[in-house]
Order: sequence, then structure tokens, then C-alpha cells
Amino acid sequence: MARPQPLSGFPEWLPQDRIVEQHVLDVVQRTFELHGFAGIETRAVEPVEQLLSKGETSKEIYLLSRLQQARQDSGATSRADKQLGLHFDLTVPFARYVVENAGKLAFPFKRYQIQKVWRGERPQDGRFREFAQADIDVVGNGELPYHYEVELPLIMAEALGKLRAIGLPEVRVLVNNRKVAEGFYRGLGIDDVAAVLRSVDKIDKIGPDAVAGLIRDEVGASESQAAACLELAALSGTDTSVIDEIIDLARRYDAMTDLLEEGLSELRQLLAAAADRAPGTVVADLKIARGLDYYTGSVYETVLVGHEELGSICSGGRYDTLASDGKQTYPGVGLSIGITRLVSRILSAGLSRASRSVPTAVLVAVLDEEHRGNSDAVAAALRARDIPAETSPTAAKLGKQIKYAERRGIPFVWFPAGVTAMGEQVEHQLKDIRSGEQAAADPLTWKPSGDDQWPRVTPVQPADD
Amino acid sequence: MARPQPLSGFPEWLPQDRIVEQHVLDVVQRTFELHGFAGIETRAVEPVEQLLSKGETSKEIYLLSRLQQARQDSGATSRADKQLGLHFDLTVPFARYVVENAGKLAFPFKRYQIQKVWRGERPQDGRFREFAQADIDVVGNGELPYHYEVELPLIMAEALGKLRAIGLPEVRVLVNNRKVAEGFYRGLGIDDVAAVLRSVDKIDKIGPDAVAGLIRDEVGASESQAAACLELAALSGTDTSVIDEIIDLARRYDAMTDLLEEGLSELRQLLAAAADRAPGTVVADLKIARGLDYYTGSVYETVLVGHEELGSICSGGRYDTLASDGKQTYPGVGLSIGITRLVSRILSAGLSRASRSVPTAVLVAVLDEEHRGNSDAVAAALRARDIPAETSPTAAKLGKQIKYAERRGIPFVWFPAGVTAMGEQVEHQLKDIRSGEQAAADPLTWKPSGDDQWPRVTPVQPADD
Repeated sequence: MARPQPLSGFPEWLPQDRIVEQHVLDVVQRTFELHGFAGIETRAVEPVEQLLSKGETSKEIYLLSRLQQARQDSGATSRADKQLGLHFDLTVPFARYVVENAGKLAFPFKRYQIQKVWRGERPQDGRFREFAQADIDVVGNGELPYHYEVELPLIMAEALGKLRAIGLPEVRVLVNNRKVAEGFYRGLGIDDVAAVLRSVDKIDKIGPDAVAGLIRDEVGASESQAAACLELAALSGTDTSVIDEIIDLARRYDAMTDLLEEGLSELRQLLAAAADRAPGTVVADLKIARGLDYYTGSVYETVLVGHEELGSICSGGRYDTLASDGKQTYPGVGLSIGITRLVSRILSAGLSRASRSVPTAVLVAVLDEEHRGNSDAVAAALRARDIPAETSPTAAKLGKQIKYAERRGIPFVWFPAGVTAMGEQVEHQLKDIRSGEQAAADPLTWKPSGDDQWPRVTPVQPADD
Repeated sequence: MARPQPLSGFPEWLPQDRIVEQHVLDVVQRTFELHGFAGIETRAVEPVEQLLSKGETSKEIYLLSRLQQARQDSGATSRADKQLGLHFDLTVPFARYVVENAGKLAFPFKRYQIQKVWRGERPQDGRFREFAQADIDVVGNGELPYHYEVELPLIMAEALGKLRAIGLPEVRVLVNNRKVAEGFYRGLGIDDVAAVLRSVDKIDKIGPDAVAGLIRDEVGASESQAAACLELAALSGTDTSVIDEIIDLARRYDAMTDLLEEGLSELRQLLAAAADRAPGTVVADLKIARGLDYYTGSVYETVLVGHEELGSICSGGRYDTLASDGKQTYPGVGLSIGITRLVSRILSAGLSRASRSVPTAVLVAVLDEEHRGNSDAVAAALRARDIPAETSPTAAKLGKQIKYAERRGIPFVWFPAGVTAMGEQVEHQLKDIRSGEQAAADPLTWKPSGDDQWPRVTPVQPADD
């Protein structure tokens, strides 16, 4: 084949970069499991009508057709099968999984899910056609207590916070509450709440003046109503004093409602818990709207400090109807980390790197092909004690074998005991090829330092703090 | 939505079954890494012409089209983009990855890859439309030593052997060598080697008599030539005496060739190494043909003892031209475990089970919502020491909270210190809900036994040996 070109929007990593991604995935997965979330995977495909049912029609879906089927149908896409599409997020398939398996699940059901998703959109910086997401959701049967809306963003903050050890900057979890926005808008006398939310969602893109215009033109709001919406959106803060500012604003516009009070009470709880458990991490930001109309309570976005232009790396919210089977509704709350967006930035900004490109800690040299078995035995003895080891590909000159290790960042080369070409009996020797030090070693007892046993992922620039 | 139905051929597991699958994946991945294989992932899609270039045209490929694009083109599949399809194995994308990144990889390059693949074929027992594979390959630049053909099947045998601890039966790795078959056929005077291999590949399906007929009819072989091919295919054995039988057969038919001798020397090395490192596991089986025409040396299939009708759970071989960019060729050897086939059988035959359905080791009870923070603090202290812990969803009666733990198999319930409704100060108490034992415990020092800390996967019936 001619040298193939990468496909735009379908990123792939080299082995040393995949080690960084795998580390991110391991940290995130372990955090989810420590909090008791069960891991599931769903199939990559859903019936198209299912994918279109959640109002996310702006997502460009990849449809599937079968090649031979298509040929039999002389080129036309087959409609014989139920039309399938690749999932564009993990929420829609999870909702379907919950309804399909409701009788076999214990509620509230806490699950994590780490999988690829696909969107046929125009690729841009931080936007891909194939990317991995890491989601957590808690879903109840009929009801779901508010405290999960406090816990879940803090779990994500904890997971992302652990990545500071590999050089990730701090994150800020930006929170808002739909009840606050809706309660305030209704208090102002605005009925088309969804339209205002859609407009407010554009503040960062088009600026507050243009948003005010949208609210007046599309919602038919007065100058004063539009101004009030923008005043609300301008408020933010990490402590509960922001709640007082919202109350002042609502009183000034005579817009206090029961729904607003309920929302403020919820937001206050979240800020208080966050101040206790993750000080400085959670910021109430009243302009966070989230485009989707299925959120009904808390909404979340997360930015990487210093990389705000990347957009949110972890978003989600509360939805009173994640799924329903007609009889029963399943309220939920969840967030999703954009793993590929995050890892892509870690790599392109050079924040972290792997200590080597392969798992191998020890390359066992081969003195001659006839005695390859001696080298294999040393490698097996090391592996039996959880030390990654491989045998040299050929009985080349030792300098060449050491070079094999060097090119991959393998720290140690082992020279097995045996008889040299000169008839001399030699003992096991181990060389640290970074320092050049060489010494006798026993394959049944020698251990590398913990830092050398497996590849490590470290900051490229040590963090200042 | 109405209760959705499963899609045939797209299996999904319940949380407790996913723990079994995750365990299988962890064991396999860890084994690959201990042997120095670097993990990579490739995108799920390839240009269709790439997918069709490997002669595997019998695989039914899923083509992709974009929904909105398709609508703009009034329903016809868009040809504006390069036509993409989902990969049906991990070998074709790996070959493309090697050529695309050749300048950035160190050869010989050892990689593992664990991903989903898709085939639009009719689902049957053990055959799926979406399934996970776990592949290892070693690929050289221009050349690749034979010893990798010995090592790779032994690594797979080691990985699968470790799963005996969770109740998997023994495996048998069935090996053959294309050079033996081709050398013998050519010695018999048969030129259309590929056609004989395709016929021999059907022995288990249609029986030896029908295969003899095929060889006579399709290849134009004589009665005696066809009989000789079947005599070769009937030979098998775990020790090198099978080599002597092949030599006897070749002499009897005067069919010894240089290529046959080369193949026998290779097969002898493989059997000798296997007898030493994995006695009884590797069986020379001269009827293993593998349908694909790109194999050029060793070929492998693997059966689960007692489940032979399931078919091979781990197959592969040596190919002198895994990939080529016109200037350079990349020979390789690799095997692929059919993870979904394997896990599906483990689950359907009830071989293994998870000790619980969630990661959680400790449920921290909540005595009243006002003091939920006390319970959260206990859970956080446990998690800080790597003990999976979650806080109760509600401050329900303690019996109901214990039931929450029981339903999920969570072994411990923690009653946090505090002041009861009666004004009485109580200390931390921990209940093992299996034994009913309850005792004081300190959240900063208590540890569960290693067996309880994380869910374990165990045999349903303890192995006899």
C-alpha cells in the first residue's frame, strides 16, 4: 500500500502517548470504582429513532449499512434491517440500557462507562469524529435525592485533581441550576424559558449585547427583562455570597418565585459542600446554560485553568426523566469527561510524558541463539515476580542489544549466566543503562525500584506547588 | 420509550457479568505487558478499499454514512467523503498503523491491541456482530526471526492458563506450519496449494471423504494425491514423534522437499519449546489450515477443552507480508483472542462469577440527612486508603440501608459515630452483613481482608485439580 494518511477527526496515538492516555483512563476508572460505581459497556450502535429521540438532533450521526447487502440492493442503503447508527454519547445508550434491564438492576443505580463515541461533524481543535468519553451517572427508580447532584461533580473534581500529579493544571467546575434560571425568568414574566437558555448559552460566543438582542427578538422580552437575564448571567462566585447577590437581584426585579428559592437552596448546598471538600474548585457561574433541554436541576461544565479556550472537558447535569418506559420514570444526574479532548491537549501542550515507550523494565540479552532458552528462563523468572521483561530479538553484538533497550527507554539489560565463546563461565550481570552501572544479580530475587518497574507518567515541567 | 429489545449479535452484560469480562481483560492485558508488548488503539474506521485489500472479502463490512449528509443527498449514501467502514479485525488496521507510523516506531515492534470489531454477519452461538478482540503481534522491518512464532502462542497459552483460576477449562493450542503443508503438497506434485488448504480447512465441517472429493474435483488431484493430503491432515501429537510420522509419510509418497524440511524443523522447535514451557498445551495438528491465504509459516487455533464445538477462541499465524509501503515489507506473527466469544461462554456455561455486583466494599449508613457529612467523611477516609466505599442513598431505617448493601453483595455496613435521636453518643461500628458480626472500628485504620477489598471473580465449581 502507499503510505496511508491520517483521517482528520480520528486521532491515534503513538505507543508512548497511549501510555499517557491509559494512565488517565486508569486514574479516572479507579476513582469511579472507589466511589462504588459499577462499570458497564453498551453496544456501539442504537436504532436511529432511539438516537434521535433525545432532542440532540444537531449531532451528526453515522448511519450503518452492510456492504454485501448494499451491493445486492444495487447500491441503495438497505432498509431491510432496522436502521442502526453509531452512538454519539453514552447517555442515550445508558438510558436505553436502564429501561431494558430495569428488572435486573438495583436502584439507585450508579454506573460508570468509558467508551468511544462518534459524531460526523467538522473536526476542529478539541473536536473529533471519534473520541472517548468517561461518564458517571446515578439513576433512580421514580425518585433520586438531591445529594447526588452535590456528590457527582465532586467525584469528577477528585478524578481530575489526581491528574495534577502528571502535570494537568487545576480545573474549575462551573455550576448552575436550571431551577434558579427558570424560577428567575418566570418571576420576570418570561414564559419561553428554553429560548432564553439557548440565547444565554451563546454569551461566550457572541457577547452579552447580541444575546440581549436575541432575547428581545426571539422571546419578545422587554429591554428590562433582557437586561435582568444578562445581569443574572453575569453573576459568579465560589462561596455562598453569590446566592445573596442573586436574591438581591431577584428582589430588585420583583422576580422571586418558589422555584427560584428551591434552586437557590440547592445551589447553596452544593457550594457549601464544595467549600468543605474541594475548596476553590467549584464556581457558581450563572451563565452556564447547557444547550440541552432535558436538564432540570444542576448543570455543570469544567474548564482547565489556562486552557479555557479548549471548552468544557467535563459536563453534565440533572435530568428528571433520563428514561421512561411509560409506567416508570428514571431521574438521573451525570457528568461526562471528554477523555480524548483532555488527552489530546495534554499531549499537544506537552504537559505529561511516559518514562518509556514500552512496558518492559528489563531486556534480557541473548549471547548466542543456541542458548536463547537461558535468556527466556531469566525473563520468565522476572515476570513471575511481576517485572515486565523481554528477551532480545537476536543474538547481535551486545552494543546492538543495548541500543534496542535504549531506543525504547528500557532501563535495564540483563546478561544471563553462561559460558562465553572463550569457554569462560560468567555469572548473571545486570546493567542500568542510564548510569552504566553493572553488577551481579539473581533473577529469583532482584527487583527494580518501584519507579522503574512499570512505565511512569510524569509532568514535563514539575508543578510549582 | 417502550421497553427496548436486545439487538441480536450485539451482546451487553449486566454489571456483575461485566466484572467477569473486566477481569478477563485485566489478566490478558497484564500478561501482554509483562512480556513487553506496547498497547495501542486504532480508530474504529478504515477506508473501505483498505478493508477489502486483505482478501478477507467474505467478512461482511459495515459501511458508514452521515445522517444529515444523507438527507441532503435525498436519501442516497453520500460519496463525497472517502467511503469509510468499521474494521472487522485488528490486523488490517494494525498493518495500516505500522506503515503510517513506520518512521516513528522501533522494530521489531511488539504491540497489543484490545478493541471492539464489527461484522455484519448472521449471529450464531459464539458469533457476534460486535465483539472484542485481544491481539498481540510482533512485526519486523524487512525480517523477523522465527523464535517469535514459538513465543507468541506460548504467551497466549500463559494468558489463558491464568484464567483457570476463575474456572476456565484448559486450552489446547493447535499448531501447524504452512511450509509443511505446502512443501508436502508440492512434493506430491500439486501446484494449487491454496485450493487444497481451503478444502482441508473444511474437514471438521464436511468430513474427510467429501474433502478428498473436493481435492480431486477442484484441484484435479489423483486419488492417491488426495489420499496423501488426508493422511497428512490426520496426523497430530504433542511431542516431536509427530515430526517422524510426517517424515515417514513424505518418504512413503516420495514427497520430501526443502520447504517441507524447513517447515518440519520449525515445527520441531515449537513443539520442543512448548514441551518445556507449557507441557501438554501445544498440539501439532496437521489439519489446521486457516482459510486465509496470507499466512506463510506457523498457523494457530485454540480450543477450550470440553467446549471444542465453540470453535477457536484464539487464532493467528505468521505472515511474511503483514504490510508493505512499496519499498519496505513488514513480516509479522500474531494471534487474536476472541474475548466476547470466550466471556460469553464463561457466562452462559456458568463457569465463573463475581463476588458482588458493585466495586463497593463498605456502605456507610446515614443516620439522618442532617449528618450525611459525617458518613461522607467516613467513606472518604476509607477511599483514601484504597477501600471502595459509598454513602447510603437515604437516611432510611437501618434495615433498609442494610438491604441496599445486601442486594448488591456489599459485605460491610459502617455505622458512623454520632449522637442518636435519644441523645446518646455512639462510636463507629462496623457490621459484616454475611456473618452478622458487629464491632467497633476506626475509619483511619480498619482494613477489609484482601479478598473483600475489591470484587473477586471465582470459579462457580472449584476446579478438581
